[in-house]
Amino acid sequence: MNDLANLYAYIDAHLSDAIADVTRLCRLPTVSARGEALPETAQTVASMLRDLGFSVQLIPTSTGRALVVVGALRGASDFTLLFYNHYDVQPPEPLDLWTSPPFEPEVRDGRLYGRGVNDDKGELCARIAAIRALLNTGRHLPISVKFCIEGEEEIGSPGLDKFVREHKDLLAADACIWEGASVNWHGEPMITLGVKGILYVELEARGPNRDVHSSMATVVPNPAWRLVWALSTLKNQAEEITIEGFYDQVRTPLPLEVSAAHRLPDESGELRQSLGLQQLVLGLSGTEARERDLFAPTCNICGLSAGYEGPGAKTVLPAVARAKLDFRLVPDQRPEDILAKLRRHLDSHGFSDITVIPVDMGENPARTPIDAPFVNIVAQAAREAYGVEPLLTPTMIGSGPMYSFTDFLGLPTASAGIGYPDARIHSPNENLRLSDLAAGIKHLATIVVRLGETGRS
Amino acid sequence: MNDLANLYAYIDAHLSDAIADVTRLCRLPTVSARGEALPETAQTVASMLRDLGFSVQLIPTSTGRALVVVGALRGASDFTLLFYNHYDVQPPEPLDLWTSPPFEPEVRDGRLYGRGVNDDKGELCARIAAIRALLNTGRHLPISVKFCIEGEEEIGSPGLDKFVREHKDLLAADACIWEGASVNWHGEPMITLGVKGILYVELEARGPNRDVHSSMATVVPNPAWRLVWALSTLKNQAEEITIEGFYDQVRTPLPLEVSAAHRLPDESGELRQSLGLQQLVLGLSGTEARERDLFAPTCNICGLSAGYEGPGAKTVLPAVARAKLDFRLVPDQRPEDILAKLRRHLDSHGFSDITVIPVDMGENPARTPIDAPFVNIVAQAAREAYGVEPLLTPTMIGSGPMYSFTDFLGLPTASAGIGYPDARIHSPNENLRLSDLAAGIKHLATIVVRLGETGRS
Repeated sequence: MNDLANLYAYIDAHLSDAIADVTRLCRLPTVSARGEALPETAQTVASMLRDLGFSVQLIPTSTGRALVVVGALRGASDFTLLFYNHYDVQPPEPLDLWTSPPFEPEVRDGRLYGRGVNDDKGELCARIAAIRALLNTGRHLPISVKFCIEGEEEIGSPGLDKFVREHKDLLAADACIWEGASVNWHGEPMITLGVKGILYVELEARGPNRDVHSSMATVVPNPAWRLVWALSTLKNQAEEITIEGFYDQVRTPLPLEVSAAHRLPDESGELRQSLGLQQLVLGLSGTEARERDLFAPTCNICGLSAGYEGPGAKTVLPAVARAKLDFRLVPDQRPEDILAKLRRHLDSHGFSDITVIPVDMGENPARTPIDAPFVNIVAQAAREAYGVEPLLTPTMIGSGPMYSFTDFLGLPTASAGIGYPDARIHSPNENLRLSDLAAGIKHLATIVVRLGETGRS
Repeated sequence: MNDLANLYAYIDAHLSDAIADVTRLCRLPTVSARGEALPETAQTVASMLRDLGFSVQLIPTSTGRALVVVGALRGASDFTLLFYNHYDVQPPEPLDLWTSPPFEPEVRDGRLYGRGVNDDKGELCARIAAIRALLNTGRHLPISVKFCIEGEEEIGSPGLDKFVREHKDLLAADACIWEGASVNWHGEPMITLGVKGILYVELEARGPNRDVHSSMATVVPNPAWRLVWALSTLKNQAEEITIEGFYDQVRTPLPLEVSAAHRLPDESGELRQSLGLQQLVLGLSGTEARERDLFAPTCNICGLSAGYEGPGAKTVLPAVARAKLDFRLVPDQRPEDILAKLRRHLDSHGFSDITVIPVDMGENPARTPIDAPFVNIVAQAAREAYGVEPLLTPTMIGSGPMYSFTDFLGLPTASAGIGYPDARIHSPNENLRLSDLAAGIKHLATIVVRLGETGRS
């Protein structure tokens, strides 16, 4: 590891530059769900890449809602590593639960707080910091590097798949590092090799053409009851999703994937404690919880809304009731198939009056083989940068547009990053430990170095 | 009817005074659920009564939240008629569905629009207009009149029962006219003789101590699912309330009540049309719908709330999920008994984690016998004022603190008023037809005149 001492020292000495980059980006309230601050964030990201010598293009997706920032920098070899990131963030609500304002990043107790400091502006800045460290420590860049940074990830990347297909040459590469990664509760870096797919829908039930006095509930149909009854047919208390055919396309995990899952430590206790829970679903813990976490699809209620939600009593029968649901999908489920099955299920259970509105186009699940050579290099780099054995994880529990990269561009894809389990992404008080930031930058720089050696060998 | 021609001419000629009174009161945003504008409305009401010669007292209830306005005016006989009204209103939301602002009353096409123009500020002003007409047409007031006007009706009259018990002498009377009444779709005045009881509760389910990323739905319990599953055990799709013992105390309606219900016209078609509904619950119409409307208790979802309810997609697993429910009760159900049964039901179905929060103390149902002599006088006065046969209705479908008056003060209680079926009380665009206002004032004045003659006879 002696050959990297110089590089690592530079990274530690210049960590404040990386923090300044994250802070700069996180001051922009880039909430894609509301279309806020997207162009200015794309321009800021582009200028950060240009400062490193990247040639940069800003290209709109077919949705017309956001620009993709594509950057390329040639290195000593033709071997090209593509970094996938996104510059948009989740809405910051509920605002009253933030200790400091979500878009005014603040360091407290060795952590940087703010929306996006981890997911995904922090991750992006760590990659920029790694390239900068390589360039500024007198090394040539050993391989070529590309960035593909989109602005619609948090609304399901509706334009990215088409974008990738239409810009195959521009994005051509040999391997891909996904948007981010975490250490676990014990500080071991987790290298994840896949994503779950997702389908996000809104269910809407309508009753009378206006809210009416609740005394009319004797004879006026209540859409909130319709919605409750319909929802209760989708998942039972044993946490089984009861939509006909929902599990038909679920691929049984490979023995290698299951054994990798079993090697992961049992963090269910830490999770329960962090979330203040008596128990996890079905009382699970240990390998059972881990297997479910990695390999089970979900049917989750993201939101419910109907009638009067303010303080005190309002005696009303609502005109409309809505639920937002997301389904996390596993190989080889497909969002369009699950959407059709959901519609069929509702119809066959007498709920043809319930409207199903797909909120976006959905995303396919994707996985890179756990024994791919690229995975081995990323793991070896983690051993060097963290000084501990990394944990190979067959899949993230979250989603992303990885399918276009793995299955269309044909890139082996693995994760590397700066997160930790209490980073609170998508929640109030999202945060980044500065120690994780330093280690993550070292890992990323090491991957580039070792890929360069492999390319030469 | 010749003896009343003078009185009726006065009422028609001075209708603008009554409209001015309603407008004055409805400019005050007296939303009791939010504790708004209560003292100034009470003072305004008191000054309107004092202008007629009433002696007025403003007395706080034990809740300390609002004043009861009690007025008394002696007439030629000791026979005392008590008017029960309330000066508070429901919240006006959703505001965007109002054509004109809810607290800026406006006349359009023969209707006055605004929150409270019917329920119950308009009703109160009609009574004031009736007394004024009697006094200004040279008549002595033939009987004594009292008002009991509270400010907490729309939040379930939490202080009124105690207030009535503590002011039995002050409120002593011989009969009571309830807060308001309606003509039906055919213009026939409905005289109602009871109220349903009510229990209003909030159910709350809690999951993780903060909203978390929806990818964790594999293992983190979702309180929205808990709430949906719990709710789905309370009422089935056959509209049967499935809380154990819920119907135990329901008194079978008397044959006289059922036959009165059968005499009421079938307005289910008009109701469906007005609300834009394909059908009423269970496809009911005619006497079946009417019987259910009058004699069935309800379990109604007033509101649902959980997680992300804004536009677009937020992939979140909520920390908390809430439902607001109201139960309309029929004789001899009691809110405290239903509350206990609800708790027991949830516990026995595995939902002891769901918190039940009673939003107020609830109200008992109440009914005056359909063959009481006072009912006959109110009906006869309706024949005179409206020129059509009134419809005796065993009970309102709404609630109110009638039990204290019927069962504690021992007053036969019937309704008279100014509403119509599309008055949209509790909804956007609440309105009052000016023709109904005139007819209602005449009916109220006639009741006083005929009670005076009966008192003399």
